[in-house]
Amino acid sequence: MTRSIAIERTAAPKTKPDEKQLGFGKYFTDHMFILDYDEGLGWHDARIVPYQPIQLDPAAKVFHYGQTVFEGLKAYRTNDGRILLFRPRKNIERMNRSNDRMSIPPIDEELFMEALTKLIELDRDWVPSEPGTSLYVRPFVISTEPFLGVSPSRSYRFMIILSPVGAYYEEGIHPVSIHVESHYVRAVAGGVGTAKTAGNYAAGLKAQEGAARRGYTQVLWLDGVHRKYIEEVGSMNVFFRIGDTIVTPALNGSILEGITRDSVLELLRHWNLNVEQRAVSIDEIIEAQRSGALREAFGTGTAAVISPIGELSWQGEAYVIGGGKTGELTKRLYDSLTGIQFGADPDPFGWMYELK
Amino acid sequence: MTRSIAIERTAAPKTKPDEKQLGFGKYFTDHMFILDYDEGLGWHDARIVPYQPIQLDPAAKVFHYGQTVFEGLKAYRTNDGRILLFRPRKNIERMNRSNDRMSIPPIDEELFMEALTKLIELDRDWVPSEPGTSLYVRPFVISTEPFLGVSPSRSYRFMIILSPVGAYYEEGIHPVSIHVESHYVRAVAGGVGTAKTAGNYAAGLKAQEGAARRGYTQVLWLDGVHRKYIEEVGSMNVFFRIGDTIVTPALNGSILEGITRDSVLELLRHWNLNVEQRAVSIDEIIEAQRSGALREAFGTGTAAVISPIGELSWQGEAYVIGGGKTGELTKRLYDSLTGIQFGADPDPFGWMYELK
Repeated sequence: MTRSIAIERTAAPKTKPDEKQLGFGKYFTDHMFILDYDEGLGWHDARIVPYQPIQLDPAAKVFHYGQTVFEGLKAYRTNDGRILLFRPRKNIERMNRSNDRMSIPPIDEELFMEALTKLIELDRDWVPSEPGTSLYVRPFVISTEPFLGVSPSRSYRFMIILSPVGAYYEEGIHPVSIHVESHYVRAVAGGVGTAKTAGNYAAGLKAQEGAARRGYTQVLWLDGVHRKYIEEVGSMNVFFRIGDTIVTPALNGSILEGITRDSVLELLRHWNLNVEQRAVSIDEIIEAQRSGALREAFGTGTAAVISPIGELSWQGEAYVIGGGKTGELTKRLYDSLTGIQFGADPDPFGWMYELK
Repeated sequence: MTRSIAIERTAAPKTKPDEKQLGFGKYFTDHMFILDYDEGLGWHDARIVPYQPIQLDPAAKVFHYGQTVFEGLKAYRTNDGRILLFRPRKNIERMNRSNDRMSIPPIDEELFMEALTKLIELDRDWVPSEPGTSLYVRPFVISTEPFLGVSPSRSYRFMIILSPVGAYYEEGIHPVSIHVESHYVRAVAGGVGTAKTAGNYAAGLKAQEGAARRGYTQVLWLDGVHRKYIEEVGSMNVFFRIGDTIVTPALNGSILEGITRDSVLELLRHWNLNVEQRAVSIDEIIEAQRSGALREAFGTGTAAVISPIGELSWQGEAYVIGGGKTGELTKRLYDSLTGIQFGADPDPFGWMYELK
């Protein structure tokens, strides 16, 4: 079923940035998608318009009470010029789960999918082709009612913006150093840690700055109750290879249900490897490191795909994992995932969605 | 020291709303204050301009990562026409503590104070005079950098907007029914519960909706670790009168340091009453209720000042507190605080700041 999405093309296309200098999330394409919600009307006025500033009342709820959700996914250009989206339905489903948690009305999944594809097709020349580059897709919902009462907004705006991005690691995949955070907490069960909502990210900044001051790239978050179970690394899910088993924290009500996490689990099972989703304490990881059983550690997320962890700092001690090098399984996962994503390898899981 | 705040007066003053129908946070005055921040420049361009929509890039960080803080205070009109602010320095100090937690650069306290007073003086005709009405003052900071990286913004906007508001309870102070929340959690130590930041308020909406469906006005939050210690009620601090002692949860790293809370504590001490700031479990409250020792319960906050709690629902049982009526001490606190705030009573604590 085709829904009606009005399209207003830009009269002044921008000059595209140098594909070798894209960085992440700095450049935006010529168009954006907008869908508005008003109580009584529902979601209405789906449209694609030139990328431009938005106007909001200073009392709009998003500025005060943070009722908002977002998603992130990527479109990849294949060697033969096709454009592939990685598991877009997963993002659409997760966004509606986030919407539910944040008391935002759900968005029609078919309209969402059509908006995604129409917008990217219109801006298809913005999908870069340099190795490792892609088009980052950012759907998000903000609450717009100009009212200072603490209650769910009566109006919302759903938007999709597109940003051509470089390889996350300019020199290819390489291990990062991580500070295990013992003071700050990201989220707790019963809170909003499972939702992709703005406040979770603001809440992590202070710890991230502290880690950076100590020379670490990111923090490893521990749970807020026992202060010992591993949750996430930065804004990525995290995996450990201990002996012949790959362990990742279970979906416990406070961590994000990552789509790359899910894809890694599928790949590992496909390879007949032993995978465990369960509570993992920092003590277990340090003990595994000391005994030599900890072979690899890595984060998973849309931006970096797979991010090897070369060092953990915990209680004043630094632990170098796998000689500080990218592990063999970590590399295999990165190569396999990006091979599928860029259309270089077969896609046995049916993950990729090809644009017209 | 007078700082330079440029003033652009509106050419089209609005019609003021009926003072008997104000509600809360729905109407805004003719002007607003703006101060911008850019990395390298610091906070700059302090100005008062006509109240109007603001323009932001769709990639502005506030929409995605929620780096934002706010404050709330009130200006009161006295019977003889003067305008009084309640403890504005406390809000300014707390906003800078929130800024620090959220990795936002601090705001000069003298400039903040001057902005507050200049703006309210300009819109002084908007301070209503009907009994129980006031001018609600909302300072807030949003992160404006159009960049999708998860990192502190390199640009911010600080604004102050003003809203004439009605008496919080249209029929005067009256007890509300509260649902003790056992599933959702507002905040946890190590998180951002002590900061007045948007995400904390969005995080509470789902529980609030559930309470409303069950016929309750608000939720009583329990701690996220033991799930038994009382934190806040809705977005207010909470007090219990047990026997001859008044008990309120201690500032434990996850609740907001309320200015009304602090003022209530000062009043209680001034009256030589026995006050305890400590951990209070829901079990203790239910036990005190059963034994007849629980005499009163109330919330404290800027919007309602004092909000009596007439009923608590916990694990399927309803407990009517103090016969469901506003307690004697609750009423005395409400009368004393509002008496000072509206300039009807002496101000032994030096809380009120009179505008020119």
